Amino acid sequence: MNNIYIIGVGLIGGSLALDVKSNTKNISVFGIDSNPFHLEEALALKIIDATATYDDLKHADLVVLSIPVDKSVIELPKILDLISDDTLVIDVGSTKFPVCKVVENHKRRRNFLATHPIAGTEFSGPKAAIRYLFQKKTNIICEVEKTAFKLQEKALALFSDLGMRIRYMNPEAHDKHIAYVSHLSHISSFMLGKTVIEKEKNERDIFDMAGSGFESTVRLAKSSPDMWTPIFKQNKTNVIETLDEYIANLKRFKNYMEADDFEEIYNEMKNTNHIKEILKGIA
Amino acid sequence: MNNIYIIGVGLIGGSLALDVKSNTKNISVFGIDSNPFHLEEALALKIIDATATYDDLKHADLVVLSIPVDKSVIELPKILDLISDDTLVIDVGSTKFPVCKVVENHKRRRNFLATHPIAGTEFSGPKAAIRYLFQKKTNIICEVEKTAFKLQEKALALFSDLGMRIRYMNPEAHDKHIAYVSHLSHISSFMLGKTVIEKEKNERDIFDMAGSGFESTVRLAKSSPDMWTPIFKQNKTNVIETLDEYIANLKRFKNYMEADDFEEIYNEMKNTNHIKEILKGIA
Repeated sequence: MNNIYIIGVGLIGGSLALDVKSNTKNISVFGIDSNPFHLEEALALKIIDATATYDDLKHADLVVLSIPVDKSVIELPKILDLISDDTLVIDVGSTKFPVCKVVENHKRRRNFLATHPIAGTEFSGPKAAIRYLFQKKTNIICEVEKTAFKLQEKALALFSDLGMRIRYMNPEAHDKHIAYVSHLSHISSFMLGKTVIEKEKNERDIFDMAGSGFESTVRLAKSSPDMWTPIFKQNKTNVIETLDEYIANLKRFKNYMEADDFEEIYNEMKNTNHIKEILKGIA
Repeated sequence: MNNIYIIGVGLIGGSLALDVKSNTKNISVFGIDSNPFHLEEALALKIIDATATYDDLKHADLVVLSIPVDKSVIELPKILDLISDDTLVIDVGSTKFPVCKVVENHKRRRNFLATHPIAGTEFSGPKAAIRYLFQKKTNIICEVEKTAFKLQEKALALFSDLGMRIRYMNPEAHDKHIAYVSHLSHISSFMLGKTVIEKEKNERDIFDMAGSGFESTVRLAKSSPDMWTPIFKQNKTNVIETLDEYIANLKRFKNYMEADDFEEIYNEMKNTNHIKEILKGIA
């Protein structure tokens, strides 16, 4: 691969560009972004070698689509129209059903691979891009059978160079499970932050009382609303299901407290403690 | 201070012992614990120099009471009965009103200082004890005026050696605000862990999909139920208030989603993003 086009030079696209530039000889990385300031930053940070436009995509060996998921479903068909027969296009969005659906009948469907690298931080934009972001992280690939075999191979080599492990899943299952292990965490964190800020807005000193536990639990409330609003919109049904269950569990906990049933409060926590073992596999 | 007695040689008592031993010459640290295995561990880890019993407390310069808060309110009056006139007794519990209340009329009230070091990890027991746990952390002191002046000085010197900054607060205010910035985080984390485990219990592979965001948000769900059940019990009224507000915020978020009002979903997140600035002060 000689010519890589990153569409959306933010945390994910930018980090991928940094690793690929470092891993590969004779490579040129081009950036396309609706935000001209991000392109300037990405150039200054040497994340990209030059800016480009959609007209240049015919020269691409690889196109990485790393923009908010509502934009992806609009841009992906246009991108597939413009590439060459040998170009691999991957997206990296946090929902997979809508993006797979929108190109299911596209004549260049076999040039596209739907992926979700489970990697990131709570920061965004080119300045958030870092080396080794994908090292030892999981990459979920959907509908692999719909991608041309030689382009699958190209993609797997890329992910291997980035240090990722691969899991295959269908888009519906991806969107359902990711609602639990990722989307719900973000909402619980945003609403925790909101609850505390609302209560303590006139007493900023109170945050002196907050420790690393609070910091850890509200970390995701720093995340970008531009990125997350379309994810919640696209995965609405699954996310509402997780919220219903989460709210029901919180209510049950509150009811035990109101009933002074602290034996059940103890059990609720004890039974959840084995999250320790479950999390051991996560970096 | 030559003789220090740690009652409860776990994460907090043990970490304090490690720092004090390292900071101070000619010091002997004694451990008292209802769990004989913890005493053995604490000896093996050189957290304590020897074990002791309540009968020895008359020799203490400092007694650190670091046991679950339901036990503290039972043990503290007994301990004050046994010490000498020059002994400083501090507790380190996460609720402050009950422990202050139980000794308000004790003849040795002036030997006691109520403190809450905002420091810890999700682990517990002597093995969880670490050096420098208290460095740059906040220590909240309640009812300082009720402690003898020279014992206040002794305590402040100790906390200064540990690297802590001090905040003074009355017990009612402490318990109300700490419910928001600490206790609620633990419940949100435990219930998030529960929701995901319940859903995915037959599909353990799903946790391969979980990333560092999920890990961060459920970290506190590893915490000890033995420590947290009595905290929730003692701070029941305040904690229920925080739960009511948290559940109401989650429901409002869900309602916006059901109504397809993603402009409000965006605003909910955007308005909470300034948690970034608030958290900058937290280590």
